[in-house]
Amino acid sequence: MDEANYVQSIVESIVHRMRDQKVKGDVADYIPELAHINPNQFGLSICLANGCQLSFGDSDVPFSIQSISKVFTLAIALGRFGDAIWQRVGREPSSHVYNSGQELEEKNGHPPNPFVNAGAIVTTDALLVSGTPKETLAEILHFARLAVSDNEIYINSAVAKSEIATGHQNWALAHMLRAKGNLCNDCELVLGTYFHHCAIEMTCEQLALFGRCLARIDTKAIHLSETHTQNLLALMMTCGHYQGSGEFAFQVGIPAKSGVGGGILACVPGRASIAVWSPGLNQHGNSLLGTAALRELSRALNWSAFSSSRPK
Amino acid sequence: MDEANYVQSIVESIVHRMRDQKVKGDVADYIPELAHINPNQFGLSICLANGCQLSFGDSDVPFSIQSISKVFTLAIALGRFGDAIWQRVGREPSSHVYNSGQELEEKNGHPPNPFVNAGAIVTTDALLVSGTPKETLAEILHFARLAVSDNEIYINSAVAKSEIATGHQNWALAHMLRAKGNLCNDCELVLGTYFHHCAIEMTCEQLALFGRCLARIDTKAIHLSETHTQNLLALMMTCGHYQGSGEFAFQVGIPAKSGVGGGILACVPGRASIAVWSPGLNQHGNSLLGTAALRELSRALNWSAFSSSRPK
Amino acid sequence: MDEANYVQSIVESIVHRMRDQKVKGDVADYIPELAHINPNQFGLSICLANGCQLSFGDSDVPFSIQSISKVFTLAIALGRFGDAIWQRVGREPSSHVYNSGQELEEKNGHPPNPFVNAGAIVTTDALLVSGTPKETLAEILHFARLAVSDNEIYINSAVAKSEIATGHQNWALAHMLRAKGNLCNDCELVLGTYFHHCAIEMTCEQLALFGRCLARIDTKAIHLSETHTQNLLALMMTCGHYQGSGEFAFQVGIPAKSGVGGGILACVPGRASIAVWSPGLNQHGNSLLGTAALRELSRALNWSAFSSSRPK
Amino acid sequence: MDEANYVQSIVESIVHRMRDQKVKGDVADYIPELAHINPNQFGLSICLANGCQLSFGDSDVPFSIQSISKVFTLAIALGRFGDAIWQRVGREPSSHVYNSGQELEEKNGHPPNPFVNAGAIVTTDALLVSGTPKETLAEILHFARLAVSDNEIYINSAVAKSEIATGHQNWALAHMLRAKGNLCNDCELVLGTYFHHCAIEMTCEQLALFGRCLARIDTKAIHLSETHTQNLLALMMTCGHYQGSGEFAFQVGIPAKSGVGGGILACVPGRASIAVWSPGLNQHGNSLLGTAALRELSRALNWSAFSSSRPK
Repeated sequence: MDEANYVQSIVESIVHRMRDQKVKGDVADYIPELAHINPNQFGLSICLANGCQLSFGDSDVPFSIQSISKVFTLAIALGRFGDAIWQRVGREPSSHVYNSGQELEEKNGHPPNPFVNAGAIVTTDALLVSGTPKETLAEILHFARLAVSDNEIYINSAVAKSEIATGHQNWALAHMLRAKGNLCNDCELVLGTYFHHCAIEMTCEQLALFGRCLARIDTKAIHLSETHTQNLLALMMTCGHYQGSGEFAFQVGIPAKSGVGGGILACVPGRASIAVWSPGLNQHGNSLLGTAALRELSRALNWSAFSSSRPK
Repeated sequence: MDEANYVQSIVESIVHRMRDQKVKGDVADYIPELAHINPNQFGLSICLANGCQLSFGDSDVPFSIQSISKVFTLAIALGRFGDAIWQRVGREPSSHVYNSGQELEEKNGHPPNPFVNAGAIVTTDALLVSGTPKETLAEILHFARLAVSDNEIYINSAVAKSEIATGHQNWALAHMLRAKGNLCNDCELVLGTYFHHCAIEMTCEQLALFGRCLARIDTKAIHLSETHTQNLLALMMTCGHYQGSGEFAFQVGIPAKSGVGGGILACVPGRASIAVWSPGLNQHGNSLLGTAALRELSRALNWSAFSSSRPK
Repeated sequence: MDEANYVQSIVESIVHRMRDQKVKGDVADYIPELAHINPNQFGLSICLANGCQLSFGDSDVPFSIQSISKVFTLAIALGRFGDAIWQRVGREPSSHVYNSGQELEEKNGHPPNPFVNAGAIVTTDALLVSGTPKETLAEILHFARLAVSDNEIYINSAVAKSEIATGHQNWALAHMLRAKGNLCNDCELVLGTYFHHCAIEMTCEQLALFGRCLARIDTKAIHLSETHTQNLLALMMTCGHYQGSGEFAFQVGIPAKSGVGGGILACVPGRASIAVWSPGLNQHGNSLLGTAALRELSRALNWSAFSSSRPK
Repeated sequence: MDEANYVQSIVESIVHRMRDQKVKGDVADYIPELAHINPNQFGLSICLANGCQLSFGDSDVPFSIQSISKVFTLAIALGRFGDAIWQRVGREPSSHVYNSGQELEEKNGHPPNPFVNAGAIVTTDALLVSGTPKETLAEILHFARLAVSDNEIYINSAVAKSEIATGHQNWALAHMLRAKGNLCNDCELVLGTYFHHCAIEMTCEQLALFGRCLARIDTKAIHLSETHTQNLLALMMTCGHYQGSGEFAFQVGIPAKSGVGGGILACVPGRASIAVWSPGLNQHGNSLLGTAALRELSRALNWSAFSSSRPK
């Protein structure tokens, strides 16, 4: 049986089990526009190094990628600024909640890593140095569309507007960063841009196609340097799941980034890119069934970075 | 050229560069007995999956393994208690210093992970449930000696006594844990045992031999389950270097555990076990040149967990 | 010699010594409009229970009262809402800086007391329940003018605008309060009002006249209940000087409230109201020479709440 | 009616109401020896400036003064070292619980004030510079006995031993102080002394007699300088009731110090010394009915430092 068939059979049974789970977690309700999503959806798509793509369940339904967009902006920022970006944001996991202002105060406005909200706001601010919010959003969309070869990827502006009006903790973070001198642009410009790239909608199929450039199984459409992809994957491993990052590494062992929309993008370097989506979240704000599916998949296929056995 | 020869030539030149470095970091001075170590020492030893061992520099000089012993105690505790140990200690990296009491207070006596001091004190307490301190230390030594096939591994009791007398922050942590109900034995018993296993002395050669059971390149002498080794390596990746854990993953990308004696044990699953030692430390308390050597080695040999290229 | 003459002679010599001090502290520079004030100014005015007012130095120069306005808004809020205001803000001193967001996070949006910025923002929000910002500011001004019998008290709108544009930490606090559900009105409305009442300008002479209602030496113009004045004075004693409140009680022993404009309003119950102004600040943001003058005055006249001797 | 008769009639009715209260708070249970005290006891004793002493209820029952002894040790330390003591401990109220280690870490081993546990441990350490624990305890007892003219005041060594064995959070604080270099003597010596002076037992009658030196209504037996009594009363006002200090100042307005044994010593400068005891505690660890009684008494007699009316 070739790899694609083997993976197909393994994942099919995992998806089957996931769809039967009664406990699906709770849909994020702090973003009004996302509160009414049907929690019974589950999608998964995998791109393999040999070019195959395997898709399951609701893998063609667009969802709000939210924090997964932090990978996009960091990838663009690394390409444009290289290591200079690290003067403004750290590379360490955080013990605090993802939107904590406490650690910003303790560390004088220096966010611990680019995957907590404050860090991603700083990254977005950096991208705005050379363009208007409109141009910057166009660049982010272009980056995603190019990687996926799909011009249909779009921003849900109702979600963005909903967050602009109600995302007060993010406004607090932006003003705190500005107070500490770690924001070059007006809070309105930066958060306007930030909330819009969080509101990008993609399907699992599109997201898995995107992940190929990170897993370096297809470097044609988008070229990220080997060093930068290693940087991105290391940060996904240690910081990709907020206060549940250590747990995810422990249970799954694959570099991945989650979003409160219920999506997770996971990358097995040189081997596979996986996107999974299920809107119900666990206590750390990561997709409950998405995490469970990746754990089973990682174990069944020996895809954990910590496995000593040959991947299947 | 076969693998061993290739690795030999690569590492030889790295070791050469390291020994020429002028900035070597500062030797830990808070443990009086360790303060007078000659900082100009550098040793490195690698065990490969094919059974070869390559050693360089001061790889036959015993040093105080200190926090690396936290891997030993956790390995034994996982073997004995399995997942029950996680009821008493977490699996998340920490933003605080390795001997912080603050987070213990915030989290009601539940240490964030077994590789910060409070977490390792809890693990040691767990091991004491079924034996005296003497028996427990004998078990830990036996575990190390068996893995290395070398009965010469010993505890430097002068170092242990020095820490018992002066390690007040650890005494504070133990009493805090006891106050919160997360210590079953008297602080004196637990810390007596803890300080003694931290005072184990090993050479790089011995430590690399030990690491084979974690990298699963030799599972004969000591058998750890595949699940438990994955657990250990995941924690080493996310929590192995205190507040510099994210940075180590970013720069090196290999699961590893450091000690303030200047040693680092790094494990490339299925491929290699590496021990490096240089007493000068960086700002997070991890060996400065040891980290630098592992970074170069990881890059030269594609041994990072985040590399998509075939390991060399 | 009657009381007024005695006080006059004592205070004259204190003022003389203060004007000779070389070290005057640093003028607050985070509010651009306040950064260019001449630090060599010093004013002091005292109203006695017998109706006398004694004034010294630059006591007729208007200055930005800033946080002293927090006493005005709390007095109005107590009159209007009574103890209901304490459901939204605490009565405990804080170990954190006056504009800290950390404790807001830890205490779920409940500010520790009404004299740190977050607490005063909540009080301002409460006042806005029954009027527009314009009406609320008119009410605050009316309250001050009535107490002083002086319609010349005004708001420096250049200072207010300067703070609206640059006071990012206060914007952060307002959004954090809004995120936690402890702000009923839009951040723009609340902070617009807050920054404007902080920008009220008064002279020492006016401020001392105002203080009579708190010291209850003249309760005709403005009637505050005995209970509410005791409430206000107790909070001024324990929380009136940010992180320097304990020190002020220790050194001076008179209930007082300071502002970063360099003013301090101190009230000796039943005996005197004192306003002092000198723009240079100590490390906690309180007037350096103003504090020193009040310490000498308190000791010379036995006006400390902790003195067992008869006041002179 | 003379003052004593007036006070007698007022307080009698307050005591009557207190003894009828159904909700009495919870007896501290973390000190095993104190957990079994009958919560239905209530005593109160007042010494007036004219020499009268009025006593009510269980005012002749000895109780564990616990943290009230912090006033004794600070008074002795001020007398012996003067302001030099402030190099080792601060004068600011704390937002943290009374036995918090968190703020010790944040402030590098410098306790915020001498009335939280860490601060009192430092004060005790200072006293040990010139004597053994036995001599130091003898000096503290002598100080109390002299002030009260009563050689029957004693230490309950069963309580002290109970705390030595179980007071792990205090052991943690002592070791933390030692780790930061703010403890000159061994933790065993310091805590041995500390736990013993906390275990002094006194009746309300004895404690009220003691308080005369602080209120300066009888300065013959024990002479404290006017400055030092003002220092002590200021700290009692801002820091005397742990995290409930602001609330106590707000409700009662009299400088006072509480202990977890249920006692409170309150001093109205130049006028009265009051001791009250009821073992049930409120959420901050202060006597519930003791606080309520002092609030009523303060209001009925105009004894608040924040009252503008003449005391009755």
